Amino acid sequence: MKTYRIAVIPGDGIGPEVIAEGVKVLNRAAELDASFRFDFVTFPWGCEYYAKHGKMMDDDGMEKLRSFDAIYLGAVGYPGVPDHISLWGLLLRIRKEFDQYVNIRPIQLLDGAPCPLKDASKADIDMLVIRENSEGEYAGAGDWLFKGKPEEVVLQTGVFSRKGTERIIRYAYETARRLNKSLTSVSKGNALNYSMVFWDQVFEEIGREYPDVKTYSYLVDAAAMFMIKQPQRFEVVVTSNLFGDILTDLGAAIAGGLGLAAGANVNPERTHPSMFEPIHGSAPDIAGRGIANPLAAVWSASQLLDFLGQERWGKAVLQAVEQVMVERAALTPDMGGTASTSEVGDRVVSALAASSIAAK
Amino acid sequence: MKTYRIAVIPGDGIGPEVIAEGVKVLNRAAELDASFRFDFVTFPWGCEYYAKHGKMMDDDGMEKLRSFDAIYLGAVGYPGVPDHISLWGLLLRIRKEFDQYVNIRPIQLLDGAPCPLKDASKADIDMLVIRENSEGEYAGAGDWLFKGKPEEVVLQTGVFSRKGTERIIRYAYETARRLNKSLTSVSKGNALNYSMVFWDQVFEEIGREYPDVKTYSYLVDAAAMFMIKQPQRFEVVVTSNLFGDILTDLGAAIAGGLGLAAGANVNPERTHPSMFEPIHGSAPDIAGRGIANPLAAVWSASQLLDFLGQERWGKAVLQAVEQVMVERAALTPDMGGTASTSEVGDRVVSALAASSIAAK
Ligand SMILES: CC(C)[C@H](C(=O)O)[C@@H](O)C(=O)O
Ligand SMILES: CC(C)[C@H](C(=O)O)[C@@H](O)C(=O)O
Repeated sequence: MKTYRIAVIPGDGIGPEVIAEGVKVLNRAAELDASFRFDFVTFPWGCEYYAKHGKMMDDDGMEKLRSFDAIYLGAVGYPGVPDHISLWGLLLRIRKEFDQYVNIRPIQLLDGAPCPLKDASKADIDMLVIRENSEGEYAGAGDWLFKGKPEEVVLQTGVFSRKGTERIIRYAYETARRLNKSLTSVSKGNALNYSMVFWDQVFEEIGREYPDVKTYSYLVDAAAMFMIKQPQRFEVVVTSNLFGDILTDLGAAIAGGLGLAAGANVNPERTHPSMFEPIHGSAPDIAGRGIANPLAAVWSASQLLDFLGQERWGKAVLQAVEQVMVERAALTPDMGGTASTSEVGDRVVSALAASSIAAK
Repeated sequence: MKTYRIAVIPGDGIGPEVIAEGVKVLNRAAELDASFRFDFVTFPWGCEYYAKHGKMMDDDGMEKLRSFDAIYLGAVGYPGVPDHISLWGLLLRIRKEFDQYVNIRPIQLLDGAPCPLKDASKADIDMLVIRENSEGEYAGAGDWLFKGKPEEVVLQTGVFSRKGTERIIRYAYETARRLNKSLTSVSKGNALNYSMVFWDQVFEEIGREYPDVKTYSYLVDAAAMFMIKQPQRFEVVVTSNLFGDILTDLGAAIAGGLGLAAGANVNPERTHPSMFEPIHGSAPDIAGRGIANPLAAVWSASQLLDFLGQERWGKAVLQAVEQVMVERAALTPDMGGTASTSEVGDRVVSALAASSIAAK
């Protein structure tokens, strides 16, 4: 029997609540399959840990994570700990140091998911956003000069390397080719006159190797508009770290809300572990009340199963999520229900046996 | 009789078509009022001019514009001329050199305007976005190193000066106070660890001078989501150049489309002329066919009237726009009608006499 070793970082706020449900679902999939099992090791890192130990993770934390098959993360950040400590010390640190340079975020309107748009159907909202996840606007490079003086000036530098830009764009072309979908690049060369001109150039260059892939190129402002007005324009989308951040929250808004938005931080070469996380935050306002929606975490667990090569189970979990939404028997308040976090998780678990047969 | 001297730059694509209607409306307002008149001087600058003369405007173009009371601009950019020439040589150049550091973009769902959101009413979509318009991500600063080599790296530097950040944020507080509305700052301090941390700090600092103004601070990703899910959260919004670009296209999407989105590039100290323009582009796909929607240009003309101190006429023009949309007798194809650009303009002109009485 194959054993997958998963590092679990429940993190802050609602993180532990939603991750518990994801773990439940993963264990159930393993049980039903019987050819693999999970070995979960939980790391209590996050803002509470910081309050006690003055650091977001153990000193040898990265070393500890390195040998796992994957990382499953809840949420990072809590009022009282500045973001540059909590996020740069845990979430962004793992993304960068483990070279998880691909952030894969499906924007897909499942049956039963609430959509705020008048005229969009399930078929219209079905895209895969591939976000650069290791550099660009998130490089952390900058300067803060003449602090406190009238001539004070603050610089933030986006860093777009040949290697970093090529690899994400190539990954996106490969994905579009494999799925037989179009590829849309989102950039802003008319204003960001270095980085995005370079981005557009690389997109074109690499494109010559993929003449079979139909491509589009949008300015980020137009892309944001089309996400609302004509989401059917988008199939596979590739974009920078910052633009991906904005567009995937927008995507979450049109595809059922943050309670349903999943993300995978992938190191495609598998030289380092990849990390799976709902894209919502720690939601301090509802933390500890047992009403957080676990479906985004469960969807991330489905991405984790795909990544491990258990695509049949990845698909089954997603179908179970969809079934739970269609039934409406157990949904959290954000989706108009009255169920608790764990009731929703239980419901997914019950739906899984049936959906796994369908997904065979 | 007061004469306002307006520099008209019709520009590229549909620019001349929509600007002609705005001029028609402005002249009609002056005629009805009888206490002021317009002296329009047209400058044929843009991409066609570039094709002939190798430059986007005359060498002494900025000098020529300097003495006008305002600039009224159509659209800049056309396939065949690279953006770094067309935009940086005309649109962005004027914004920067004339220190038009405030970009004011109303996002307001008028009666009769199509809204793609299921649950949003007129009262929900009514905000004023105040976008920094002179520096930040659009500073044009960067470097392109090791071109063509494997170690190639491209840097794009956002420049946030104390002066530039303070003045836009102060302008926004003043506006919120005057309108008795809340003020929301949109930034991204958790990832852009220099520029946006500084932005948040200045927002808080200046806020101490405005204890009467209720404030909110959102991350840009969350703001994009809330624009769709709960637009009623926003009243006055202040944000950076790039984020303002993205959020106002998103705003256009929820408030009737780009055919209705207006913008003012303002130099509040009036040491240089301000510039009024629809936020749409030159729309090469429909240019020359007489079907472009002139309502965004007309709305910008209404902002121009406000700026000149003719607020009564600014209001009347906006009401006339609204009336034309409610009647639906003359609308362009993008709004589901069959009218031509000039038929829509004529209709606004006819509506103006009545609306000006109402607006008195
Ligand atoms: C928490 C934050 C740093 C993060 C990001 O901006 O990447 C989040 O918004 C996300 O999208 O995963
Ligand atoms: C044309 C382009 C440079 C411009 C911008 O990004 O500012 C436009 O999108 C706008 O919003 O006015």
